[in-house]
Amino acid sequence: MPKNAAKVGKIPSIRRLPQYLRVLRGLEGAGQEVASSSMLSTSLGLEQIVVKKDIEITGITGKTGVGYMVAELIDGIEDYLGWNNSSDAFLVGAGSMGKALLGYDGFRRHGLQIVAAFDNDEGKVGGEYKGVPVLPMSKLKSLASRLHVHIAILTVPGDSAQEVASQLADCGISGIWNFAPTTIQVPESVSVLNEDLSASLAELSVRIQSNM
Amino acid sequence: MPKNAAKVGKIPSIRRLPQYLRVLRGLEGAGQEVASSSMLSTSLGLEQIVVKKDIEITGITGKTGVGYMVAELIDGIEDYLGWNNSSDAFLVGAGSMGKALLGYDGFRRHGLQIVAAFDNDEGKVGGEYKGVPVLPMSKLKSLASRLHVHIAILTVPGDSAQEVASQLADCGISGIWNFAPTTIQVPESVSVLNEDLSASLAELSVRIQSNM
Repeated sequence: MPKNAAKVGKIPSIRRLPQYLRVLRGLEGAGQEVASSSMLSTSLGLEQIVVKKDIEITGITGKTGVGYMVAELIDGIEDYLGWNNSSDAFLVGAGSMGKALLGYDGFRRHGLQIVAAFDNDEGKVGGEYKGVPVLPMSKLKSLASRLHVHIAILTVPGDSAQEVASQLADCGISGIWNFAPTTIQVPESVSVLNEDLSASLAELSVRIQSNM
Repeated sequence: MPKNAAKVGKIPSIRRLPQYLRVLRGLEGAGQEVASSSMLSTSLGLEQIVVKKDIEITGITGKTGVGYMVAELIDGIEDYLGWNNSSDAFLVGAGSMGKALLGYDGFRRHGLQIVAAFDNDEGKVGGEYKGVPVLPMSKLKSLASRLHVHIAILTVPGDSAQEVASQLADCGISGIWNFAPTTIQVPESVSVLNEDLSASLAELSVRIQSNM
């Protein structure tokens, strides 16, 4: 876990860490105990200096002429990301994107467990999807407090995203992963990560046209 | 459509353009014909200078003291993004993430129509999902050529992503939207946009811990 701002590291480095985990777990599975930065650099298609800087933010250091101990580096990255302790999350909005994410099995591998979904559509409430119960929005506050859930995945339509985001902040949620196609305003104590697929589609469209 | 590199614009500007479209369509729906940059700046929570720079890349100019013509700006942005002509796309990998995206109705609004899904699991092939047929991988090349499809959404597991990406490049696909949790290497003529949810989860994890 990052102890202070200086150790927080740059966002691109943080975003690459899961790639290191994938490579390192592969090496571990193959019985390899040591990984050099040049080996990681080749596997990941990154400059060696980038590899060194990326790993530096986790506080793990390699041995000169040897490299990093694979198991230690895996632990160090997971510890830095907080992925060694599973975090519970709520999903809010059980529409098409919400169900898509409930059906995605990648989160659990990274220590994120969706424990409940919420919706205000009575037709959806009461059932479950992929083993996750769909509950009415009115239960959100009491459940967040009882289960100590601090992360919410927001998959409501754009026009209700702001209202729901304000509700989430009010329920003690400290991190919102926003898949709604709109920007949301929340108190400073809440971290928001926007996952805007239309932004990505815009970027891809222009890159294809201009062969970037 | 961007005519040359100078007009391509910066990626963050491009990625914000869909937000402008959403606000402008709202204004158009409300019968508003003119939008000032200060109005757009307030709606989007962006500095006015950012709004001006963002719109500049589309080649649309406003009138001093008046603003932008809403209909003209919508057309200009859609034209720049190539969203006024619907593009057909293939989805490759009809697993949990693939089905999630097939069920997501946001793409069509942005001129992206998934016309076929491909998978090499015989249990999935032959059926359809949300009206989209699921076909065997062996049909990909002939269909890409016959239907002139140039965009592929890649939702296969990480360990087969590289092999499939190479196949896609070989089939004349020029843009890959990569949801597979791995980096892929393709010829320079192919644009790749990585949509790595584990990278986003890493970023969110650290931001929550350090309240960024």
